[in-house]
Amino acid sequence: MSSLSNSQANSQLGSPLEKVLAPDSIAIIGASNDPTKRGYKAMMGLMDGGYEGDIYPINPKADTILGKKAYASVAMMPPHVDMALICTPAKTIPSLIEQCGAMKVKGAIILASGFGEVDEAGAKLEQDVLDAAKQAGVRIIGPNTSGLFNLHKKVNLLALDNVKPGDVGIISQSGNMLLSLALEAQSNGHIGFSTYVGPGNQTDVGFADYLAYLGDDQNTGVATFYVEGFKDGRAFLDEARKTSQKKPVVVYKSGSTEAGQKAASSHTGALAGSYQMTVDLLEQAGVSVVANSDEILPVAEGLGLLQHASGKRVAVLADGGGQATIASDRISEAGLELAELEPATRLSLSQILFPQASLVNPIDVAGSTDANPGLLSKCMAILAADKNVDMVFLVGMFGGYGIRFAKELIEEELQCADEMIALSKETAKPLIIDSLYAHIKPEPLERLRQAGLPVYASIEHAVKIMAALGERGEYLKYNQHQARKASLTVNQASVDALANAKAQGRDLFEFEAKNLLSSYRLDVAKEIIVRDAAELDDAYAEFGDIPLVMKVVSKDILHKSDAGGVKLNLTGKDALYAARESILASCFAYKADADIEGVLITPMARKGTEVIIGMSQDPIFGPVLMFGLGGIFVEILKDVSFRAIPLSRYDAITMIDQIKASKLFEGVRGELPVDKDALVDLLLTVSAIIENHPDISELDLNPVIAYDKGYAIVDARIIVDQEK
Amino acid sequence: MSSLSNSQANSQLGSPLEKVLAPDSIAIIGASNDPTKRGYKAMMGLMDGGYEGDIYPINPKADTILGKKAYASVAMMPPHVDMALICTPAKTIPSLIEQCGAMKVKGAIILASGFGEVDEAGAKLEQDVLDAAKQAGVRIIGPNTSGLFNLHKKVNLLALDNVKPGDVGIISQSGNMLLSLALEAQSNGHIGFSTYVGPGNQTDVGFADYLAYLGDDQNTGVATFYVEGFKDGRAFLDEARKTSQKKPVVVYKSGSTEAGQKAASSHTGALAGSYQMTVDLLEQAGVSVVANSDEILPVAEGLGLLQHASGKRVAVLADGGGQATIASDRISEAGLELAELEPATRLSLSQILFPQASLVNPIDVAGSTDANPGLLSKCMAILAADKNVDMVFLVGMFGGYGIRFAKELIEEELQCADEMIALSKETAKPLIIDSLYAHIKPEPLERLRQAGLPVYASIEHAVKIMAALGERGEYLKYNQHQARKASLTVNQASVDALANAKAQGRDLFEFEAKNLLSSYRLDVAKEIIVRDAAELDDAYAEFGDIPLVMKVVSKDILHKSDAGGVKLNLTGKDALYAARESILASCFAYKADADIEGVLITPMARKGTEVIIGMSQDPIFGPVLMFGLGGIFVEILKDVSFRAIPLSRYDAITMIDQIKASKLFEGVRGELPVDKDALVDLLLTVSAIIENHPDISELDLNPVIAYDKGYAIVDARIIVDQEK
Repeated sequence: MSSLSNSQANSQLGSPLEKVLAPDSIAIIGASNDPTKRGYKAMMGLMDGGYEGDIYPINPKADTILGKKAYASVAMMPPHVDMALICTPAKTIPSLIEQCGAMKVKGAIILASGFGEVDEAGAKLEQDVLDAAKQAGVRIIGPNTSGLFNLHKKVNLLALDNVKPGDVGIISQSGNMLLSLALEAQSNGHIGFSTYVGPGNQTDVGFADYLAYLGDDQNTGVATFYVEGFKDGRAFLDEARKTSQKKPVVVYKSGSTEAGQKAASSHTGALAGSYQMTVDLLEQAGVSVVANSDEILPVAEGLGLLQHASGKRVAVLADGGGQATIASDRISEAGLELAELEPATRLSLSQILFPQASLVNPIDVAGSTDANPGLLSKCMAILAADKNVDMVFLVGMFGGYGIRFAKELIEEELQCADEMIALSKETAKPLIIDSLYAHIKPEPLERLRQAGLPVYASIEHAVKIMAALGERGEYLKYNQHQARKASLTVNQASVDALANAKAQGRDLFEFEAKNLLSSYRLDVAKEIIVRDAAELDDAYAEFGDIPLVMKVVSKDILHKSDAGGVKLNLTGKDALYAARESILASCFAYKADADIEGVLITPMARKGTEVIIGMSQDPIFGPVLMFGLGGIFVEILKDVSFRAIPLSRYDAITMIDQIKASKLFEGVRGELPVDKDALVDLLLTVSAIIENHPDISELDLNPVIAYDKGYAIVDARIIVDQEK
Repeated sequence: MSSLSNSQANSQLGSPLEKVLAPDSIAIIGASNDPTKRGYKAMMGLMDGGYEGDIYPINPKADTILGKKAYASVAMMPPHVDMALICTPAKTIPSLIEQCGAMKVKGAIILASGFGEVDEAGAKLEQDVLDAAKQAGVRIIGPNTSGLFNLHKKVNLLALDNVKPGDVGIISQSGNMLLSLALEAQSNGHIGFSTYVGPGNQTDVGFADYLAYLGDDQNTGVATFYVEGFKDGRAFLDEARKTSQKKPVVVYKSGSTEAGQKAASSHTGALAGSYQMTVDLLEQAGVSVVANSDEILPVAEGLGLLQHASGKRVAVLADGGGQATIASDRISEAGLELAELEPATRLSLSQILFPQASLVNPIDVAGSTDANPGLLSKCMAILAADKNVDMVFLVGMFGGYGIRFAKELIEEELQCADEMIALSKETAKPLIIDSLYAHIKPEPLERLRQAGLPVYASIEHAVKIMAALGERGEYLKYNQHQARKASLTVNQASVDALANAKAQGRDLFEFEAKNLLSSYRLDVAKEIIVRDAAELDDAYAEFGDIPLVMKVVSKDILHKSDAGGVKLNLTGKDALYAARESILASCFAYKADADIEGVLITPMARKGTEVIIGMSQDPIFGPVLMFGLGGIFVEILKDVSFRAIPLSRYDAITMIDQIKASKLFEGVRGELPVDKDALVDLLLTVSAIIENHPDISELDLNPVIAYDKGYAIVDARIIVDQEK
């Protein structure tokens, strides 16, 4: 996969995109004096934007363009040009890239379309471009890019005149989405951007590379992505795991429904993949995933400007009961908690608020601040000092006291804003501020915004931000020092079993799969393979009169139950003989030429809680583990969780807890709780097995029966990758 | 319940609140010349607001107040005053109400607090106020109201100067919520309000009365409620069922979580009740319930201004792939569909759009409109003409073409806006418009807004509005002509059985409950009650050698399994004798003095899909039916639905379909689908039984086993209201 290898190349080279996305000099290939031409508009835009580096117009037919000396060809321009902006048509690109390489240009931005997104010939041309780029050592942005800007470097190819420099870096597969965010920021009035790139066809540079760049970019405080589909999701996960340790990574992934996936695919041709899997894997890598498009900018802003929270306990400070109630509902729904305040906190609050104030979180000041809004910052300081509080949420009228009650209060509000700003610098806990007056932009709120304290206009959005701050805090806490690999010594017998199956062009038989799992000390029910009738006596001698299960073993019979190849609840020797006869008869009736290896005999499993564990090689994300409850929970409710392999212990724990019906594991209807530790170990071992045996392309443990102590793998299927 | 009886009084009288909330004359009791007094502020506010009716200040110590002749007492003011605004303290109120009654004042607004919300003495005073009001025939708003306005009548007691008259009527248990909505409307720039009331303690006039008023009020296009807790939910449901036929009713109900319920209760003292039940019952009555506070105003606006949709099929018209994708995701998630366009529609579109435009819904014009935004209204007209389309959603840059591409385009956009406005008047299908430029308020969007076409700034909000329009359309379609009662002749034996149990101070025995159900032709498994051992022979003779269940019958043993009072899978006469011995022994060991009536014998139920049906008398909403899947689905996943009794057939159908795991009823894993018609009939019959027997206070059918044909009620419990 080309972008994977590119991404690996990057990490060896450091930040190879810096000179491309923050260039000190730009060649404009196809620059023009004709105002209708793209080569004119691009150059004009750059100059209008105030670009301070050198600009070298390339045009064989002009002496000067827009007042600058023009060069007849790439070869004739001065050396050490960082980046080439190519405005000429698709077919000219491969040779231009070659020329850029010869001049040691670091990268080229290709505006032209007409490549793989159009037809077969275009795809061929795109491959030529990529080949030329690799040969020449030139990185390619696009082709078919919607453009880019780097506002700190005053590179602005989009002619957006209302965006200002700031810390939000954004990569968007939709140009209109960038436009939408820019307009939102403009209306909001204080959010700025660092770098934007429309990745276009991602022929060379892909999402993972952009993420690495934004991770290293000092002007970027938060890396934000609008993604319709990943090409190399695994590379992005790997990069996200690193970058998210340094700064927040925000992703909106479209295609949460089939209808959206269809629309995305017709828009970018992107492969969609399972939405829930994508979300799980991104979160595993430390990414903050936003579910709604109108939350992208607020969440990016909050994560960029505010310190992450060390936990999920929120203190709510409200000057109206309605807002206190709404905030409490949303906080609970978002998986956050209302902090239980220390008695000292309540005492301090009681000393400055009216007696009727409600001092149990959510705090409702009940009129105490109507004539005295300055108390709000004092309350916030008291709440921030409480050791049970991870973040402080102010919600209500702040900023509007001067408007609502008396003009004179504005001065007090301004001073209060200054105190909030000072507090935000003293405390490590984030202060999140939501105001009814946010839309109106009164002076006290503008002061907060100018000081880098965001002010929100929607409780719903503010709570999404708190959730992101809390989740990021928990992620950093639990993942920072967590070794992700729990590697196990490779078991040679298992290597041989897989090789043997491959040699025979088949997958593992059930008993071989179970042997493989056993060899890694996983708990598989004891079982005996019986190849001819006489061996039934041995099986009976081994198990005795307990209820047994018999299943056919044949590479030709995949769906054993459908073929009549499974018999349950067999007790006594006669029953075994009869069952074998019946199974063989049914299976040959089902498939006359079936190659039947024998039957497998195992005790009926004790009752417990059925779970399933599956592994598959996802075309976008590589090996992925799935966990869920057995039966209709998976089939009807899709109540499953996903993690990319290899898993950390934290991954395995959260993978189990994330299941909607996970309360079941705690024991309901008088049953004992399930042995979660054993399940965690099982998941980690499966992860290690997949790492040890890359030729396993699919694995299914279905069901695994979980008990109050341990578990039993009742059925196992291992599919072998015949190509590896 | 006082407010229920008030509500009934109202419906006899017509719109008894009209003269109170839209008065032609107002007495201000406690009017004052002292600017620090409430009686000054209220009068000043009214005059500042431009109230055009007569104002009569009442004050024993002044000749004139704010330039108007003052009256020494209520008795001395002119006759026929509509409404009294009472600004004096709590303890003065009962006698003032009496005086108002003598003067035939229609209603009084009581601003004072210090009643039931404070302490016992306050509660006593509140009861005195209510008694006085009933005696005097004066309706009471409040006490402890956050105020009110009627902007069309220029009654504005809130001193909000930025609200304008419009069609949104709003009743809010939080004053700050009203303030928040008013500020949002101000920033949005075109939404106005009709009447606002803070209902305060709802001592007399309650939510149901306000709803009836807003329903009749010609200035109100949509009745909107922020509710922390209902006092008499049943009265509200009854009123909503009527009003929602005439105009949209929007409710935001706080307390969706335990944390929110606690906060609401400390704010208003409101009883919360189950959130999901409240939502289900409101929707059953035709209410549009919004889940998030930042959706209240957008949804109210959309429902107020736009025609409801006749179905849920949306045509999306986008000028950017990203927005098309996001819209598709949200539309699917909201339970709406992307309309499948007719071939003629696609043909017409293809004639005006570029060849690369995507003509499969969502439509992406792919640049066709960049230089020609006027095409958008033409596309909308084509889509609105498609018989498979219920509503048209325009999303993207409209309004911003002149900003983004070329100033000259503004004229074309304005004309296009005019065409959209014309189209909205010609077609019965709602046009929903979302623009990246909504925040910026460019001229073409302002023209739409002025013409009553809302413009949204968030795809997420726009989709919520479409969902509300579609749901309202479906509700009106299916409920309009639907008789809600399927009444059944009262069964006298059942009346007697209930009376007999009541006489004995006990609930129905299981066999009696089943007899009652049987008598209404419900399918109960055949069963025999055995009072002494000898009768076991009769039971055996009746059932033969099929597997049977035996259960203890005793008023003293509620949890039969816990007491060892249930034996399963009994085959043969000996087994019956042994089981009875064992049950009696266990039960006496469990409770030595248990009064044991006998044992009940019934065949083991065939396997099927377990569902449960329950009825309880909710303190807020009256008799409510619950439906769910048995076992852990109810216990862990809370996958249940609720409807107020009596149910319509539509209620019963949607009650089943609403269950998250309802796919299970369609037959999974090779099983046959469940007989839904039989379940619908069962729900309707249970509803009728509850109506016939109001002395049933609780009913539990758990489990009912649903089959591909019919069902069997396996266990039934009926609790008798000993007070009725």
